Amino acid sequence: MLNPVTPEFVEKLHEILPDAAFKEDTAAYLAEPRGRWNGKGLVVAPGSTDEVAAVVRLCAEARVGIVPYSGGTGLVGGQLLQDGPEPVVLSLERMNKIRDVFPTENVLVCDAGAILATVQDAAEEVGRLFPLSLASEGSARIGGLLSTNAGGVNVLRYGNARAQCLGLEVVRPDGTIWHGLTRLRKDNMGYDLRNLMIGAEGTLGIITGAALKLMPRPVGVGAALMAVPSPKAALDLLALAGEKIGEGISAFEIMHRQGYDFLAEVGPEQPMPFEEIPDWTVLIDVGLPVGLSPEAALEGLFEAAFAQDLVTDGVIAQSHGQRQDFWNIRETIPEANRRIGSVSSHDISLPLSMVPRFIDEAGDALAALGDMRINCFGHLGDGNLHYNVFPALGKSRDDYEEQRPEVKRIVHDLVHAMEGSVSAEHGVGRLKVKDLETYGDPAKLQMLRAIKDALDPLGIMNPGAVLRQKH
Amino acid sequence: MLNPVTPEFVEKLHEILPDAAFKEDTAAYLAEPRGRWNGKGLVVAPGSTDEVAAVVRLCAEARVGIVPYSGGTGLVGGQLLQDGPEPVVLSLERMNKIRDVFPTENVLVCDAGAILATVQDAAEEVGRLFPLSLASEGSARIGGLLSTNAGGVNVLRYGNARAQCLGLEVVRPDGTIWHGLTRLRKDNMGYDLRNLMIGAEGTLGIITGAALKLMPRPVGVGAALMAVPSPKAALDLLALAGEKIGEGISAFEIMHRQGYDFLAEVGPEQPMPFEEIPDWTVLIDVGLPVGLSPEAALEGLFEAAFAQDLVTDGVIAQSHGQRQDFWNIRETIPEANRRIGSVSSHDISLPLSMVPRFIDEAGDALAALGDMRINCFGHLGDGNLHYNVFPALGKSRDDYEEQRPEVKRIVHDLVHAMEGSVSAEHGVGRLKVKDLETYGDPAKLQMLRAIKDALDPLGIMNPGAVLRQKH
Repeated sequence: MLNPVTPEFVEKLHEILPDAAFKEDTAAYLAEPRGRWNGKGLVVAPGSTDEVAAVVRLCAEARVGIVPYSGGTGLVGGQLLQDGPEPVVLSLERMNKIRDVFPTENVLVCDAGAILATVQDAAEEVGRLFPLSLASEGSARIGGLLSTNAGGVNVLRYGNARAQCLGLEVVRPDGTIWHGLTRLRKDNMGYDLRNLMIGAEGTLGIITGAALKLMPRPVGVGAALMAVPSPKAALDLLALAGEKIGEGISAFEIMHRQGYDFLAEVGPEQPMPFEEIPDWTVLIDVGLPVGLSPEAALEGLFEAAFAQDLVTDGVIAQSHGQRQDFWNIRETIPEANRRIGSVSSHDISLPLSMVPRFIDEAGDALAALGDMRINCFGHLGDGNLHYNVFPALGKSRDDYEEQRPEVKRIVHDLVHAMEGSVSAEHGVGRLKVKDLETYGDPAKLQMLRAIKDALDPLGIMNPGAVLRQKH
Repeated sequence: MLNPVTPEFVEKLHEILPDAAFKEDTAAYLAEPRGRWNGKGLVVAPGSTDEVAAVVRLCAEARVGIVPYSGGTGLVGGQLLQDGPEPVVLSLERMNKIRDVFPTENVLVCDAGAILATVQDAAEEVGRLFPLSLASEGSARIGGLLSTNAGGVNVLRYGNARAQCLGLEVVRPDGTIWHGLTRLRKDNMGYDLRNLMIGAEGTLGIITGAALKLMPRPVGVGAALMAVPSPKAALDLLALAGEKIGEGISAFEIMHRQGYDFLAEVGPEQPMPFEEIPDWTVLIDVGLPVGLSPEAALEGLFEAAFAQDLVTDGVIAQSHGQRQDFWNIRETIPEANRRIGSVSSHDISLPLSMVPRFIDEAGDALAALGDMRINCFGHLGDGNLHYNVFPALGKSRDDYEEQRPEVKRIVHDLVHAMEGSVSAEHGVGRLKVKDLETYGDPAKLQMLRAIKDALDPLGIMNPGAVLRQKH
């Protein structure tokens, strides 16, 4: 059983932390990004790994829970604790430095509190690419991105956050520090603790530093929006793109026309690339080496696809600005969704070939349930759909309180039956603990619990996230 | 404390396994690949995951140790137990099928006993690439390759075995089965058990099946051998290659002239590409998409490098056969090494920029110790050197019995001081347990032990590998 933060405990914190580590207005740290609920806790922001370790030691002694807080952009409540004794919310924001850049090694070492855009910029300064990229890159921090194994738009080409990391520095639940900040490409000395910490959502320790992999910058970049007659055609187009352009495909995103309609309905306003919006479009982004033209590659792909009836229309970006316009459409859809207010949002993944059947069957099942609008979009190249269900025009999220659990159940049951995942890239947090219990393989659940108990025997690290808190 | 295999135990095994699972001549399973020592154990080869599970349950009941056996090509004794009660050696050889291929998903699912070359061929049949590639690919099996997180020549471009795997089927130490054979590209539901099992060398469970990632086949492939004035120049050439050819570099191998000399001395005979063998050569392999010529790319690289004094000579393969010749040199060096017989072999990795200093300092330190020949070669692109020390001409391995521990200590201490790893790709096995204890971060060692005890509380899985057996 955990204990709450007490006045005596706060006094002890003041003994080990400078005043700068205590925040005056802490409301922002306790609010869900979509404003759906609030967490609780005493917010502190240590300025160094040693200070983090000191806080953790104090919490371990007092058996006070710790909720690690990074950019606060997570959508599954991993950074927000609502129930149980008041915890310490440990923000990494003051540890936000790039520690070192090794261009000849293609490695960058940074604090866990470094903002993703800062890391991208530091890589660009030395002519390299840090390929992790997602809508919240201006505020999401490396520690949280790694702890949730964040995905984003370039996973198809470069892998998720896990694939971008070489080494970690981690403060363990007993306050000792694992110095695993290696710059090595290969190291087979013992179990893979790095990948265990990545994606553990702060339940096994606090990531305080990371050695990240940099990539060569593609020389020629380009993008196209293509209208496809169906999700199946989009998948065939993806395969064709692989044959024609190989690993040069950086992103392959699908968007249903519902997303465009939402943008028109509630903004943010975007220029529309088609006179008539097609039911399904894909956004293809390429990055090619010297000697190849992105425009020519995309034109060649379009022509071949058109001959096979895989595309009906298309626009190839003729400038950097136009490419950005295409991406703005894709990246403002989540904001339009937020303005509409979803009945239920789902971050799912499926074996690629199951995607068309899923879209058909889920659509039919939900249509039978009532009048709703579905905005299905996302990272088709990874089999990752954001399958979000919205109120019918003129209704609001609140009108669907009773149907919400059933909507979610229908979608998740179908995903599970098709061997998919009900959290592709957002993680488990606190929102999907029950889903993990429901859909998780029993042997897997046993192993997760055994690992949690072995590495955090007091249960103080991000209590109730990923796994239910034991009493 | 474990129990040995007894006649009663063997009887029980016969009740759950068909006769085909019992091998007549088992000597080959118990021999170290370089003939250095022998293991022990009763060899059984179950024919299905359920049979593996039944064997494991029996072993758990009787507290008999299990040594998983895959291709038997490992070089650190992970597949060979010498000490302690006689174990069951569990060979995966009868589970060697490709279960399914999903070309549109770029996924292949196979038994853990499938041979690497078989998997490569199955990928090629559907126009895809399974990029894991190493000298023993004709006999190494997927289960062992994953359990040791094997590396090989294409890690620079495609990553190690870990990066090629999407899902696993694993028999746990209590005989239950973890059904984690997912084909998903993204799944953030809980801790990363897949990567924990990969590289665990059979100490946490037995991998019985795997879902593997396939890649597009590069359209144009080519190779060049280039003479470089120094390891530092080789690193600069690597960076230049990254700028010129981007991700198209599939392999970047370095070879010291000692390797060529050994080939000339003891074979296998190879055509020599240079009239005078340079001190250092690099083998660069490229795979490019449609529209780019590998020969032109390599010529362009050579010219730019020559202008910067990074190369002094070079040969660009003019045919598939000549490319194969280059690779034959690289891939027969380990056989020449075996024929010479090393004083001490080291599979090390370093932060890339430390490689030149390591080669200098290790060479100096060993020269001070006595008359030895050093064959340093390997995967420079990954910072992974096979730094092998051999007897002076006219002497033999046996003449260096007394110096061997000191040679190893000098090399490993230096690697450790430079923040490298003393097992880059071969794993810990039983040979490097002490090294892991000596050089491992204390917090890491505690976590490894906690995980082992949590997931294999009886300590029956590959006892004494990775971690010392508890009594």
